[in-house]
Amino acid sequence: MSSNWNPKDHLPQDVQQSMVNANDPLAFYQIISRLKIQKRTGWLDHDINDCESIADHMYRMSIMSMLIKDPQVNKDKCVRIALVHDMAESLVGDITPFDPVTKEEKHRREWDTIQFLCNEFIQHYNKDAAKEIMDDWSAYEHVGSLEARYVKDIDKYEMLVQCFEYEKRLNDSTKLKQFWSAVNSVKTQEIQSWVQKLLKAREEFFQA
Amino acid sequence: MSSNWNPKDHLPQDVQQSMVNANDPLAFYQIISRLKIQKRTGWLDHDINDCESIADHMYRMSIMSMLIKDPQVNKDKCVRIALVHDMAESLVGDITPFDPVTKEEKHRREWDTIQFLCNEFIQHYNKDAAKEIMDDWSAYEHVGSLEARYVKDIDKYEMLVQCFEYEKRLNDSTKLKQFWSAVNSVKTQEIQSWVQKLLKAREEFFQA
Repeated sequence: MSSNWNPKDHLPQDVQQSMVNANDPLAFYQIISRLKIQKRTGWLDHDINDCESIADHMYRMSIMSMLIKDPQVNKDKCVRIALVHDMAESLVGDITPFDPVTKEEKHRREWDTIQFLCNEFIQHYNKDAAKEIMDDWSAYEHVGSLEARYVKDIDKYEMLVQCFEYEKRLNDSTKLKQFWSAVNSVKTQEIQSWVQKLLKAREEFFQA
Repeated sequence: MSSNWNPKDHLPQDVQQSMVNANDPLAFYQIISRLKIQKRTGWLDHDINDCESIADHMYRMSIMSMLIKDPQVNKDKCVRIALVHDMAESLVGDITPFDPVTKEEKHRREWDTIQFLCNEFIQHYNKDAAKEIMDDWSAYEHVGSLEARYVKDIDKYEMLVQCFEYEKRLNDSTKLKQFWSAVNSVKTQEIQSWVQKLLKAREEFFQA
């Protein structure tokens, strides 16, 4: 059962279809702007109004990716995947498990959006770039590579580091407790070792 | 003439020297958090209080880097340089030409900070990563590669795209006029072609 949701209907006001120009990626960059403006819903839903943007989250994920030690990992590939993995949220928004949208519908909207962005906005300017972004986004969605697996884990870890920062700001270890269940979905040994040290730092902070 | 400014004295409150742990990059990530929190001074100085963070700016620069068409350019290298080039601002802050700090002193603080971050926080965990980040940061500072040249240009272009967005929000083409002098420092043909199209879109917007 699919809805009528269509990425075209969710373009920012200042991005007109007329702006789609074979020689100008400006319209695409103006869509990306939404990732800078939109705040992460998980925090807003918990009354943390002065919180990070979606772009802020992906930014720190990309820096974390640069520090992976596992010699089997192509770190530059992880950096790219971290930067594109939430790109569809520029038009879809940041849907959480608590929103009245099924997981399947969320996935469909994001898939339609990334195709829309790549085919209608990037491809005309740079065909290779459109394919690379599509490939990196798909790799993440399907956990189709070791690099995608690491970025999945870093997505959780970055969120937990941020969660701890907000808990310290609130001086409250209970309000955001539900986020910590993500600990269990971190699969790689290296990122799980980061998580364990984060848990220890948090325990020490709230015991002091 | 050097001041007494020292990166150690500017660590976020929750990052204590005791947290520097050979097996845990958490302290470094908590410093990177400052890039998500700190807003870009150029906009704040013009009363745009609800403006982008330093991380937001670097995020969109990294996406713009993915679209470069020049076949001589290693795009992944540009992405990395875009992500690290303002990293020192995590402790130094975003010093503008209007601040009472000389260009030389600004450069010294940033140099001291990136060395401090790489040597004291990253190297213990991942020696290669520390060197790579230092190299990418230095390449940008000295415009030591074609990739660094492109990222220098994208730094200006991203700022101008953002400037146009704020001008549209304010519905005023005069208040932020000074930023547009950056147009002249864009050296590569490809990014200058993006700039020219941006100028045209701006002209059309404010003529309408």
